[in-house]
Amino acid sequence: MRTKALIFGLLLAASTHAQLLYHDASAFPLLGKATDATLTRYERLPASLESVSRKPLWDLGRNSAGLALRFRSNSTCIGAKWEVRDNRSMNHMTPTGIKGLDLYCLQDGKWVFAGSGRPQGKVNEATIVKNMDPEEREYLLYLSLYDGVTSLAIGVDSLSTLDQPTVDLPVREKPVVFYGTSILQGGCASRPGMAHTNILERWLNRECINLGFSGNALLDLEIAELIATVDASMFVLDFLPNATVEQMKERAEKFYSIVRSKHPETPILFVEDPIFTHSRFDKRVAREVKAKNETIAAIFQSMKKKGEKNIYLLSSKDIIGHDGEATVDGIHFTDLGFMRYAEVLYPLIKKHIR
Amino acid sequence: MRTKALIFGLLLAASTHAQLLYHDASAFPLLGKATDATLTRYERLPASLESVSRKPLWDLGRNSAGLALRFRSNSTCIGAKWEVRDNRSMNHMTPTGIKGLDLYCLQDGKWVFAGSGRPQGKVNEATIVKNMDPEEREYLLYLSLYDGVTSLAIGVDSLSTLDQPTVDLPVREKPVVFYGTSILQGGCASRPGMAHTNILERWLNRECINLGFSGNALLDLEIAELIATVDASMFVLDFLPNATVEQMKERAEKFYSIVRSKHPETPILFVEDPIFTHSRFDKRVAREVKAKNETIAAIFQSMKKKGEKNIYLLSSKDIIGHDGEATVDGIHFTDLGFMRYAEVLYPLIKKHIR
Repeated sequence: MRTKALIFGLLLAASTHAQLLYHDASAFPLLGKATDATLTRYERLPASLESVSRKPLWDLGRNSAGLALRFRSNSTCIGAKWEVRDNRSMNHMTPTGIKGLDLYCLQDGKWVFAGSGRPQGKVNEATIVKNMDPEEREYLLYLSLYDGVTSLAIGVDSLSTLDQPTVDLPVREKPVVFYGTSILQGGCASRPGMAHTNILERWLNRECINLGFSGNALLDLEIAELIATVDASMFVLDFLPNATVEQMKERAEKFYSIVRSKHPETPILFVEDPIFTHSRFDKRVAREVKAKNETIAAIFQSMKKKGEKNIYLLSSKDIIGHDGEATVDGIHFTDLGFMRYAEVLYPLIKKHIR
Repeated sequence: MRTKALIFGLLLAASTHAQLLYHDASAFPLLGKATDATLTRYERLPASLESVSRKPLWDLGRNSAGLALRFRSNSTCIGAKWEVRDNRSMNHMTPTGIKGLDLYCLQDGKWVFAGSGRPQGKVNEATIVKNMDPEEREYLLYLSLYDGVTSLAIGVDSLSTLDQPTVDLPVREKPVVFYGTSILQGGCASRPGMAHTNILERWLNRECINLGFSGNALLDLEIAELIATVDASMFVLDFLPNATVEQMKERAEKFYSIVRSKHPETPILFVEDPIFTHSRFDKRVAREVKAKNETIAAIFQSMKKKGEKNIYLLSSKDIIGHDGEATVDGIHFTDLGFMRYAEVLYPLIKKHIR
């Protein structure tokens, strides 16, 4: 058995890069999960919801959005082998964002982009960064946004170290929990690190939990119960692009109260529907955005009147700038849109996390 | 023949959107070409170069990067049908950027994003924007960046107009000509309008001609001769990411002098190699960038000493910001990178175009 593993390891190393030896990633800390009670490691919803949640919601919960592996190495080269569940493609998002990887390195306390893992399909192998000086470094590896990683191995030079991180960054106590739509799930970042929850995780140096479900932020109450299990510093509820006016009227306050009942003091931020860039022309979309924003404003004011504390409502006015250029299709943010959104959210969250 | 065309037209209209009627785009002005002597309409190099240029360069010349159609319509909905030559895919760029379309509309003298045409494959059909008020509008439709459009039809409501533009914007006299690499060709913009030459075309309201050839900006002298045929307001030579130190030493001054000989006064801007974001870690890339930038600086200083006028060298220091986030893979710009690059180039070009 040991011999077989050794031979296998050598074969793996020889197959692409003479120096790279691959190590299963299971042993390393994984950030971004609301719960560890998942069916497999790199997914987001607890196994208990498989028979409870609507099927599309459950399936999206198996995407790895917001998950990130922490490790330390002195290797001159970092590679990865990974497999994804669905081998999904979309015409408005890069395969690297959908099913790739994204590596950041800690430099003077800040996370700096080091390289992306560009996928080939279901089974993937990539050299992410190479030709580095052989120094000890702390790494953060973001996983696929719109597919589910089913296996992951990290490749390092055969004579180098691959160790547990020795720096506790991003801070894992009191994470920030985000609930939302396709945009929140990272559609359409060019690479996983550019989803705004991942940008904010780096800027805040605080763990962020991404509960974005493309087309399915419909205020399902079991998700509120999952959110309520997290001892968070702040909850961000960003469901307007999906939830209808009727769904909001019926369930937004209930969804909120499930979270609030377990966290009487924690700040909860509601976010208005973005002013979608094509809504300057598409009058139906413009009317829908207006109706939804009026609805959330009414719900918010009603809660305030009832005496709810520590609730906030973010106006969508400045979320993605005013030049109309921040999306790929009018709706889904590009890296430009995510960067602008992160810049708006950062100060709001920063002042609430202790 | 007429009956057949009519039936075909009706079938096309009925096939997707009850109201849309498609019209071949051949009759409408096309911006972004250095020459009209091309094999087919939506490509960039003159037919005469087919037997002259290296094959990869010739093939890339058949990509539609920087080409844009101008038209006017009062339709409430704009659609397109288009076919591409190669049906290309890349794992670090969206299909919409590679082989899609991108529509802008003139609003108070400024070009505003209206919607993108998301592709299905080789043969494509998309509703780009809908639910508009039925007002006369001027449109600019950017073509695919990394594939060649071989046919294009514009769809409008059956009872609406589709006319020649009545506003001469972007201005076509004295265009700006850009020569460069994969980055210049638009790799990896999320949609065609976000290539920086297209952003600048809108901001300057001046036609921009994109002679970007992925991996092939190797200072081929026949491209200098093509560039020299354009009565430009400015030439931007942005070849460093591809050309080697040796190629630059051998051919950069010759390439320049071919353009200069026909345009004794026109400003010519050389651009340094970008500080690729992964070069903080990849020492080989960092050394290469440094060597190339020293080479172009030496060539530039030598030309200055010889008395060359109206030449400029753009430092790469601030081209894509300093946070390391502007690329998808360390090299190729995302919309965030292109926006930052356009912001740096805009004032430099603005002051030289009359």
